[in-house]
This record gives sequence, C-alpha cells and structure tokens, in this order.
Amino acid sequence: MAYKEKYPSELLSDAVEAISSLPGVGRRSALRLALHLLKQPQENVHHFTGAIDRLRDEVHYCRHCRMISDDDVCSICSDHTRDRRLICVVESVRDVMSIENTGQYHGLYHVLGGIISPIGGVGPSDLTIRELVDRVAAMESPAEAEVILALSGDVEGETTSFYIYRQIAGYGVRVSSLARGLGFGDDLEYADELTLGRSIVNRQEFRP
Amino acid sequence: MAYKEKYPSELLSDAVEAISSLPGVGRRSALRLALHLLKQPQENVHHFTGAIDRLRDEVHYCRHCRMISDDDVCSICSDHTRDRRLICVVESVRDVMSIENTGQYHGLYHVLGGIISPIGGVGPSDLTIRELVDRVAAMESPAEAEVILALSGDVEGETTSFYIYRQIAGYGVRVSSLARGLGFGDDLEYADELTLGRSIVNRQEFRP
Repeated sequence: MAYKEKYPSELLSDAVEAISSLPGVGRRSALRLALHLLKQPQENVHHFTGAIDRLRDEVHYCRHCRMISDDDVCSICSDHTRDRRLICVVESVRDVMSIENTGQYHGLYHVLGGIISPIGGVGPSDLTIRELVDRVAAMESPAEAEVILALSGDVEGETTSFYIYRQIAGYGVRVSSLARGLGFGDDLEYADELTLGRSIVNRQEFRP
Repeated sequence: MAYKEKYPSELLSDAVEAISSLPGVGRRSALRLALHLLKQPQENVHHFTGAIDRLRDEVHYCRHCRMISDDDVCSICSDHTRDRRLICVVESVRDVMSIENTGQYHGLYHVLGGIISPIGGVGPSDLTIRELVDRVAAMESPAEAEVILALSGDVEGETTSFYIYRQIAGYGVRVSSLARGLGFGDDLEYADELTLGRSIVNRQEFRP
C-alpha cells in the first residue's frame, strides 16, 4: 500500500499494522481506530489492551465440553438443572452462545474447536472428537442419552457429522442432527432447491 | 443487551465490552474479534496489544507543528527540502496524512488537535492556536509567508478559520483557504485525492 510510507510515525504504523490484522478490518479503519485510541486517556487504552491480554492469557476451557470458561468446569456443565442425557455437538464457542440465546435447549454441549476440512488441513485429531467419544463411553445408560450433531449443513459439516456418528454409534447412544428446512418467514421463491427439497421430504404435521 | 448475560466467561465479557467501545464496532463484531484473538498464538495477541500500548505510551507530538511523531520534531518539520514559508493548518493528524498523500503540497503543517465547537465544548484554548500564533510571530519575513487554512467546510470549520484569521492577520502574513473544490460540508478525510490535491493547488485568499 502506498499509504504505508506516509505514516508519520513508526509507532502508528506498527499499531495500524496490528489492528488491520484483525479479520474484516482494513487499513483505513485500522488507522481510524489507532487515532481514536491515541486520543483516549492512557488508562482507558491500558484497560482495553489489558482486557484482551487477560482473555488470551487466563481463559480456561471446560474439561468436559471444551467451552471457554473462567474455571476448570464451565457454568453449563456445572449447572445441575441441565439435562445431562443430551450432548449438543457444535463447531465453536459462538455456536454454543447462539443456541443458548434461543432459550430452547437445556442439555450439555461439546465444542469441537473446528470442523474436519481436508483442504484446510484439519483432521479429526485436531478436534475434540476423542474427548467426545470418551464422554459417550463413560455414560451410565447410553440408550437413554442423545448426541445432537449441530454442525453446518455444508460438505465439511456433513463429513464431520458422519465421522462422529461412526465413532459413537456403537455405544448405543441416540444420534440426531438439526432439522433443516426453510427459515421462519422465508419466501419459497428465494429458497435454494436443496433446502426446499429437504423441507418437503422432512415435512411435519401441521399443528395450527 | 440480552446477549450480555449469556457470555460464558467474565474474561470474554470484559474483552467484548472493551472492543465494542471502539467507534463503529458493535457487540456482535466485538465478540467475533475477541474469539478471533482467542484463537491466535499468545505471542501474536501480545504483539497486537503491545503495539497499541506503545503507540499510546510512547508517541511524541512535534514541538513545532503538533503532528504525531517518534521524535521531538516530526519528519516533515525536520525535512529541509520543504517550503518553510508555507504553514497548512489542519484539524487532525489524519488530515496531514490525507494531504501528504496527494503529493501536491511541500510546505509545513500545523495540527490544531480539533476544531472550535461551542456545542462540543471545544474552545480556542483547547486547540493549538496559541502555538500557531507564536510560530507566525516568530517568522523573519511574514510578508513572504502564507498560512493555508485547510479546515472542513462546515460552520465549525469556518468559525475556526475566521478566529485564526483574526489572530494572525495582523502579522502581515498571507492567509488562504482551500479552494472550494470540496462540496460544502464535506469532510477532508473522505475527499478523493484529485479533488483534495486541486483544492490545495487552487487555494484562495481568505476573505472573511
């Protein structure tokens, strides 16, 4: 970028470089943010950077479900009102937050930390699949339990679901996946054929 | 936000809070950025926060023009090929960078650090107007010098230009303002380089 040589200060240039390394933040936005931070009181800036450093340095991952947590066991796994017979398998921390936000699920989770992707160089051993299998194997009555595969509906998500299914089906646990179909309020006209097709095949009884 | 109570970790909540304090960054983007940083190697995150801390802690302001700088005197003021008879008065550091980027200007600058704004509670004494008057007063031959008022074309910019004009006109220095190639009310920062460059070249005598 031609801009780079024009930075009036190495410190500014370094900060812009660092900020623009964030996903979705261009050089122009990074400059704007750097100059904004420069105008803030020093203690506010230290509070800002401190919060980020502490997050990275001190965060824990729940030893059961691998969700991020302030403690060794996360607030969901240590909540005894949750249904321990349900394990919802998701790709990321954000997925847990999205599902929690619906208020519709009261079981436990398992965060894979990614998805099987030969192109991205992510294999089963890079994820927490081993830990999931261990959780299932340790269940007292697997026949009464259910593992919900809540992964993306793309090829990588399907591949990962299939891989996990093969690992855990032998324990007699029930395995389900998310219902797929039209979103609420979706227009038929704009739905892709695959989604629409699935919606027809998996149609449900009309309960007005 | 209902989201807040759902954060699985205080550390994450604090980081999201800090990141969303940046202008133009909502809570959702902040969460995305926090989780991105969480996945980076620890040293990368420390490099990121370190660059921001260093910028805030170690940056200098040029003692002549108040531009940010790594030293006591900025690279423009210490560049002896620049025309010392020209002082371009701008609101902010970003404006200097914008004008430098046009490649059309080879004089010096003076960064006001803001603009007179009764509503925003910014008066002349909050800006570096005193320092600008001192620079003009110290000129050996002010009649050969020129002060270019390169402020925004809105009411506050005009007010500030007029205030500065009254402070420095008595020293016999020529005072000009940017050519009205910019639309009225346009922000310098968002002007394209051609328009901004033309505005500098075709600057006009300030006639209040």
